[in-house]
Amino acid sequence: MEETFVPFRGIKNDLRGRLLCYKQDWTGGLKAGIRILAPTTYIFFASAIPVISFGEQLERDTNGTLTAVQTLASTALCGIIHSIFGGQPLLILGVAEPTVLMYTFMFNFAKDRKDLGQELFLAWTGWVCVWTALLLFLLAILGACSIINRFTRLAGELFGLLIAMLFMQQAIRGVVEEFRVPKRENPNQTALEPAWRFGNGMFALVLSFGLLLTALRSRKARSWRYGTGRLRGFIADYGVPLMVLIWTGVSYIPVNDVPKGLPRRLFSPNPWSPGAYSNWTVIKEMVNLPPLYIIGAFIPATMIAVLYYFDHSVASQLAQQKEFNLKKPTSYHYDLLLLGFLVILCGLIGIPPANGVIPQSPMHTKSLATLKHQLLRNKLVSAARKSISKNSNLSQLYRSMQEAYDEMQTPLAYQIPPALLHQGLKELKESTIQLAENTGYIGAPVDETVFDVDKDIDDLLPVEVKEQRLSNLLQALMVGGCVAAMPLLKKIPTSVLWGYFAFMAIESLPGNQFWERILLLLTAPSRRYKVLKKYHATFVETVPFKAIACFTLFQTVYLLVCFGLTWIPIAGVLFPLLIMLLVPVRQYFLPKFFKGAHLQDLDAAEYEEAPAIAFNMSFENQDLQSRTNNVDSAEVLDEIITRSRGEIRRSQSPKVTSSTPSIEDIKSVYSPRLSQRVYSPRLNELRGEGSPRSPGKELQVKLTPSPGLSILGKGIHGSSSSAGQIP
Amino acid sequence: MEETFVPFRGIKNDLRGRLLCYKQDWTGGLKAGIRILAPTTYIFFASAIPVISFGEQLERDTNGTLTAVQTLASTALCGIIHSIFGGQPLLILGVAEPTVLMYTFMFNFAKDRKDLGQELFLAWTGWVCVWTALLLFLLAILGACSIINRFTRLAGELFGLLIAMLFMQQAIRGVVEEFRVPKRENPNQTALEPAWRFGNGMFALVLSFGLLLTALRSRKARSWRYGTGRLRGFIADYGVPLMVLIWTGVSYIPVNDVPKGLPRRLFSPNPWSPGAYSNWTVIKEMVNLPPLYIIGAFIPATMIAVLYYFDHSVASQLAQQKEFNLKKPTSYHYDLLLLGFLVILCGLIGIPPANGVIPQSPMHTKSLATLKHQLLRNKLVSAARKSISKNSNLSQLYRSMQEAYDEMQTPLAYQIPPALLHQGLKELKESTIQLAENTGYIGAPVDETVFDVDKDIDDLLPVEVKEQRLSNLLQALMVGGCVAAMPLLKKIPTSVLWGYFAFMAIESLPGNQFWERILLLLTAPSRRYKVLKKYHATFVETVPFKAIACFTLFQTVYLLVCFGLTWIPIAGVLFPLLIMLLVPVRQYFLPKFFKGAHLQDLDAAEYEEAPAIAFNMSFENQDLQSRTNNVDSAEVLDEIITRSRGEIRRSQSPKVTSSTPSIEDIKSVYSPRLSQRVYSPRLNELRGEGSPRSPGKELQVKLTPSPGLSILGKGIHGSSSSAGQIP
Repeated sequence: MEETFVPFRGIKNDLRGRLLCYKQDWTGGLKAGIRILAPTTYIFFASAIPVISFGEQLERDTNGTLTAVQTLASTALCGIIHSIFGGQPLLILGVAEPTVLMYTFMFNFAKDRKDLGQELFLAWTGWVCVWTALLLFLLAILGACSIINRFTRLAGELFGLLIAMLFMQQAIRGVVEEFRVPKRENPNQTALEPAWRFGNGMFALVLSFGLLLTALRSRKARSWRYGTGRLRGFIADYGVPLMVLIWTGVSYIPVNDVPKGLPRRLFSPNPWSPGAYSNWTVIKEMVNLPPLYIIGAFIPATMIAVLYYFDHSVASQLAQQKEFNLKKPTSYHYDLLLLGFLVILCGLIGIPPANGVIPQSPMHTKSLATLKHQLLRNKLVSAARKSISKNSNLSQLYRSMQEAYDEMQTPLAYQIPPALLHQGLKELKESTIQLAENTGYIGAPVDETVFDVDKDIDDLLPVEVKEQRLSNLLQALMVGGCVAAMPLLKKIPTSVLWGYFAFMAIESLPGNQFWERILLLLTAPSRRYKVLKKYHATFVETVPFKAIACFTLFQTVYLLVCFGLTWIPIAGVLFPLLIMLLVPVRQYFLPKFFKGAHLQDLDAAEYEEAPAIAFNMSFENQDLQSRTNNVDSAEVLDEIITRSRGEIRRSQSPKVTSSTPSIEDIKSVYSPRLSQRVYSPRLNELRGEGSPRSPGKELQVKLTPSPGLSILGKGIHGSSSSAGQIP
Repeated sequence: MEETFVPFRGIKNDLRGRLLCYKQDWTGGLKAGIRILAPTTYIFFASAIPVISFGEQLERDTNGTLTAVQTLASTALCGIIHSIFGGQPLLILGVAEPTVLMYTFMFNFAKDRKDLGQELFLAWTGWVCVWTALLLFLLAILGACSIINRFTRLAGELFGLLIAMLFMQQAIRGVVEEFRVPKRENPNQTALEPAWRFGNGMFALVLSFGLLLTALRSRKARSWRYGTGRLRGFIADYGVPLMVLIWTGVSYIPVNDVPKGLPRRLFSPNPWSPGAYSNWTVIKEMVNLPPLYIIGAFIPATMIAVLYYFDHSVASQLAQQKEFNLKKPTSYHYDLLLLGFLVILCGLIGIPPANGVIPQSPMHTKSLATLKHQLLRNKLVSAARKSISKNSNLSQLYRSMQEAYDEMQTPLAYQIPPALLHQGLKELKESTIQLAENTGYIGAPVDETVFDVDKDIDDLLPVEVKEQRLSNLLQALMVGGCVAAMPLLKKIPTSVLWGYFAFMAIESLPGNQFWERILLLLTAPSRRYKVLKKYHATFVETVPFKAIACFTLFQTVYLLVCFGLTWIPIAGVLFPLLIMLLVPVRQYFLPKFFKGAHLQDLDAAEYEEAPAIAFNMSFENQDLQSRTNNVDSAEVLDEIITRSRGEIRRSQSPKVTSSTPSIEDIKSVYSPRLSQRVYSPRLNELRGEGSPRSPGKELQVKLTPSPGLSILGKGIHGSSSSAGQIP
């Protein structure tokens, strides 16, 4: 994305890019079939549960002026509009905690004014929304989102971790509240006697920890040893909603003597009750406001505009991280413009507006990567099986898989840079060639001992995301359905909600390099080699530990300051400003304390990014056939090593096999690559053993010293070998 | 152990063997120093907690005639005597569930007899003990324990799993009871109102699951990434008692409004109260019994004798499994004789007798294996460091390590078969030679890049157990101390107890092949290769899956029948008879349905065991020096493979690095062996890279096809390659 501040240019560029793939956004989603329901329900729960909980919070804080019905309606409405008319369909919209806080501050301000009061509160927020929208239009038109490029990992990951902390705080607070008398309830009822309150609190602990632990386990079901593949897949895809159902069921087990209201369940008004929709006609009252308040609404509007500008863009950015290998273009400017319209719309019908949310947006992308992985995998497995049954050799096998892969590709060659489009293809090709060389059965027919269809295809597949609009639209519709399903939702115990909050906080941690650096600092020095053995980012090898520690400590202190700020009334809402401050800090302040090369590896910024090392340039232009016929063993070995090095270097882009890459997953993705791919087929070959069909030939292997692969040595010796990659 | 039924021969043999190592049993324990406290406290808790809980059960069931004071006293007394005068000091004695059940049946019989009643109950049990002891003497003298050899894994592991099921059943029952009104308490107190009872039950769930999950975690602390090595070691060694303390602390957190008696805590009489020791003078009343009852006492005595004969021997057998590589002799006959004396002693002072217990006895051996591992490791690491600092080459390094190893050996060469004594040594030698060959730096000085002291020594160490009497004596003394510490013990909540029961059940599962076969049956067919990748027993490769399934299903049905039998009053105590029935079933019935070779791998019986394959005979007699100077690369590779095959075959004897070999542990033990030892140093050498001091030489590697190592191929292909090992 170019950094331009010419009016309208950003919006125009966004529109042009997204319109080209608009049709495919729908057809791609429809082609996925029933499987699209897995990411849809996953995101639906991640989206609906916090919105319901924020709605309850809002109801307490606004004396019932706004309820979960309104927050759900806003989330559904904005979600539907954004999924159809929005630019980036990976972005999930919802009513977020900062919005709730802002509305609470505004309510506290309004309720005590004689000429405003609780009655005109919504009308006043209508004006706030109008001003906010105007500011957002201005920002979008002037190309303010261009500077999103300056938001490096430093700011994005700090924000992500802050949100995780806020979610966890909410979970802990929620469970503690279960032991106390809730504010709005009658304290004389049986369920609120000290004895039952104690029981309620303990039950809440059981339910929330039960949900948290089982939900975390279920996400890893794909790597379980037990159960059929179909069952494991089902649990991994739908485990979290399933667990909400199961633990809600458990909450109904104690019936003897247990009074009504224990455990506490969601409290929400019946959406069919009279007056539940009084807010829809708020537009009529907006003209009745005193002009001073109409103008005064500009002050909160600036705060909200800054907040939304930041929140919306960063959520969108985190949903489009480089690791995901997205093929379709970004749309920051146009999405901010659309957000402006959504804010006006929400303001006029008296509901709090929704904006792009974290961690749901990156969760959405991750779950779609899993989906795409499954679809691609099925296709390639069947192609490979067919090819093997025809006694093909490996290069024929590759060709048939390439054809299958091409069929699955987004037909957007005309608008996406060719380099990007062919990236996935090239990776597949390289991996297949490498496999062919390693096993040494290049001409011979392939069987499943050489190419294990199920396992090897997993290794060949690059990360790809099923980019489409359907999952976003469906989840928004389901959130809308929640309004109708309110009586059912009320059966969910609040403690399950708190467990779910903790689950979301923990789910958002893996992949956050800031978090992983904190863990690295806590790792015992003698155990750091374990980090190197697993999937790890480049900086672990290239940056001295002291620099990593300083950088992480600085970031941690900054995080704690931001977290502290959220506890200060009113000012707390402005914590995004503090995070935006990180942009100049990163650009002008940090380079004075850290070496450029180190900063580059810890926190790559596009404005100072080094060109990628083309580690396999040399034989990219060679023909597959000519290579496979003239194998010089020494060269093969040399290349295996060089290429492995490249793969390790590439390790910043993990393969997503489940939407949270657990350690198990990462092991299964990386260790076969490093150990089996490089070692075991090699050894198979060395000892002249293999499939019964292949000759047990003698092979002369000449060895030359070669650099790289030092990662496999003991301890952290890698820093020198990759230093050359930094200009 | 020879199978002899000549009177007294078994006892004489046992005494002769154990007397030779008696002095070393004490000096060895004292030499371990403060570290002996880790296995001691571990076993103390495993021993004391069930005994206290059984004592409570007995108190309820005998109207307070016997209490936890008596069960603790019996466990301590028998434990102290056995640890000093007993044969096998690895065996842990304690009052077990079957004893409690027998005493309950006898109490129910006695209390309703006019001429017996509750007053003479203990006197009558005195006579039962006398008869039991006589029967045990007879069994010991006639060499009944000789047939212990006929108890294969089939019976032993079935019994182990049954005990685990009974412990788990107790844990579940205990937690369910927490929701109910306990029998002996006044149901009108506040803590037993429905509301508080509900809270108590929920709190019990929190405490018991908290203890269970944290205790299981803490046992794996050694493989954690965080914290210093010392802290990790401390948590792994003392984590379980620590968790009991922590969760007892947590149980004191709720103070506001919570009534006394919530959560429920251990209930036991003050040992200083008058009348608590009325049972000690029971011998005076024994003569007052009607003669009919004195003779009638023979009937329960036969049952108890069968029970103890079986229980004591199997507990001893499970504590001395082959995997542990024990160096000192067995002592079944003599220990049974001593048990007879202990039973009389207990009978005469009116306390229930203690016998060898499962799972505590095997837990004891496992924890001592960890201890020995640590001691040996420290010694070798310092020897290796010293040697490296002197610029030694690998063979010098080996010599210095061998010296250190020899120093640590039990000086029993005169009475232990030399083959046994040198086994550990030979393993060390082989591993070192292999290391030398793999790395290819045989003549060059060693540095830590070639021989990573910390990591490689772990791989070199065989499983060895610190066989001594001190830990058994100390734990028995600590159990005795519990009687004095009763007021402190009363602070432990009962729910923590139930969590501990579940912990013991789960701790006893790993290493039980029956359990692992059940898991294998539940494993999805497509995931079975995962079992092969990890530590696994021979049968997984050599026996067809169908045969494994049939064998396991038969065993499972048998287990369920035994479990069902325990629910039947009186007859239930005789479930050991059903397990003893497995001996003829195994010997005469099973061979009709399973192939001899398969049965051999599934359930090796000594009476039909095949001679072990001496896979490395060929170069055992060669001199180390001559070998290291004439390295023919092809031979090296060939031997690596053959030997690796041997190592895999040996995989029935895992290295115990923590007393429960978790999957993590097993991975860390086996995967470095298979992948690093065989592959990565090999590859290091192949690519001519290595330590800066060594020349980057070119090496020609000729390759010949060789058998074995098929385990590393994909899928279960190994069945043919090892079939040759079965005669």
